[in-house]
Amino acid sequence: MDDDDYMRGKLTNNKIFGEANALLAGDALFTWAFELMLQNRGHLPQERVLLACLEMAKATGPAGMVGGQYLDMAMENKEISPEMLENIHALKTGKLIQASVSTGAILGGAQGNHLESLRDYGKNLGLLFQITDDLLDVRGDSEKTGKESKKDLQRGKATFPKIFGIAKAEDIAYLTKEKTKRNLSFLSQDCDFFTALADYIYTREA
Amino acid sequence: MDDDDYMRGKLTNNKIFGEANALLAGDALFTWAFELMLQNRGHLPQERVLLACLEMAKATGPAGMVGGQYLDMAMENKEISPEMLENIHALKTGKLIQASVSTGAILGGAQGNHLESLRDYGKNLGLLFQITDDLLDVRGDSEKTGKESKKDLQRGKATFPKIFGIAKAEDIAYLTKEKTKRNLSFLSQDCDFFTALADYIYTREA
Repeated sequence: MDDDDYMRGKLTNNKIFGEANALLAGDALFTWAFELMLQNRGHLPQERVLLACLEMAKATGPAGMVGGQYLDMAMENKEISPEMLENIHALKTGKLIQASVSTGAILGGAQGNHLESLRDYGKNLGLLFQITDDLLDVRGDSEKTGKESKKDLQRGKATFPKIFGIAKAEDIAYLTKEKTKRNLSFLSQDCDFFTALADYIYTREA
Repeated sequence: MDDDDYMRGKLTNNKIFGEANALLAGDALFTWAFELMLQNRGHLPQERVLLACLEMAKATGPAGMVGGQYLDMAMENKEISPEMLENIHALKTGKLIQASVSTGAILGGAQGNHLESLRDYGKNLGLLFQITDDLLDVRGDSEKTGKESKKDLQRGKATFPKIFGIAKAEDIAYLTKEKTKRNLSFLSQDCDFFTALADYIYTREA
């Protein structure tokens, strides 16, 4: 949709296979995801499988990823508030990352406050991913990121560095990383992987 | 994807809202369909809801509608066999029509041979729809169909009239209509609506 030639150092599908085939591949994966979720349910309780699929559908539909992509494009070259910026990011990339955590939690039987805390963890992890993505766009090494730098700025997209400045955006990234880890404090079990994931996203260079 | 200006007498979404928004509306509806199916399940048995959603996912994914659209575009301006033509149509439009019948059957508790007969009914209904669609493209009244005539021919698309000639394509439509109705013969209940639906598609002018 943004017609980029490269993503993570590789030519994009629309350049190699043409726009129509790239679109169809996306549509096919979108549906195939539901097929796989519904088919490979093993001995999991049916109620949990239904709720996990519903969680994923909500996260990717008009009130999630697709809605966020729409807002992101509609707001190009416009002045937007910090709240709108956060909302766009929460929908466009945050909801899918959030659902990747919460569907696992639902299948594992999490409920109530525990499920909500894990949803918050996923939401903050997604926000952290987006802030660091914005920062990499302005100061990233395009050899490492595999994308051309400053593409967002060229397109007139609102980003965290553009609205807050680089230093303040870095502060927000730090605070979001800390908040993300605190969302796990209710867990008595070992959750090193999940705290390390927040650290990894905070320090990533690509 | 075929960049038509009009569909059923109305300007297409890509003309009114732009290509990106038209694409996103399609993506949103694709996902929203699963959200609605998974959310509004009332007191239906969970197993049936899961199987119906799976049926719909299979019908619309790479082995269904999306795969058919890919084949349809890949085969433009190529010589194809009648079997390939039927396969393209079965996937591109047939599977979704078939699933509209079979998901209802699954939710209603149909199983085994009965479910298979209803799947066959849906498959033949879809094929009938496509043959009449092809015939309307060559001899239809564009005032009634709301589409420009002979678009398929201009695009170099294989169609039933192109491969078999108009008279033979009309014969195939008649035979398919009769076969469609025979798929219901196992039903002892009143199924007037479903036989009338086959007649309606066979005689439609738009």
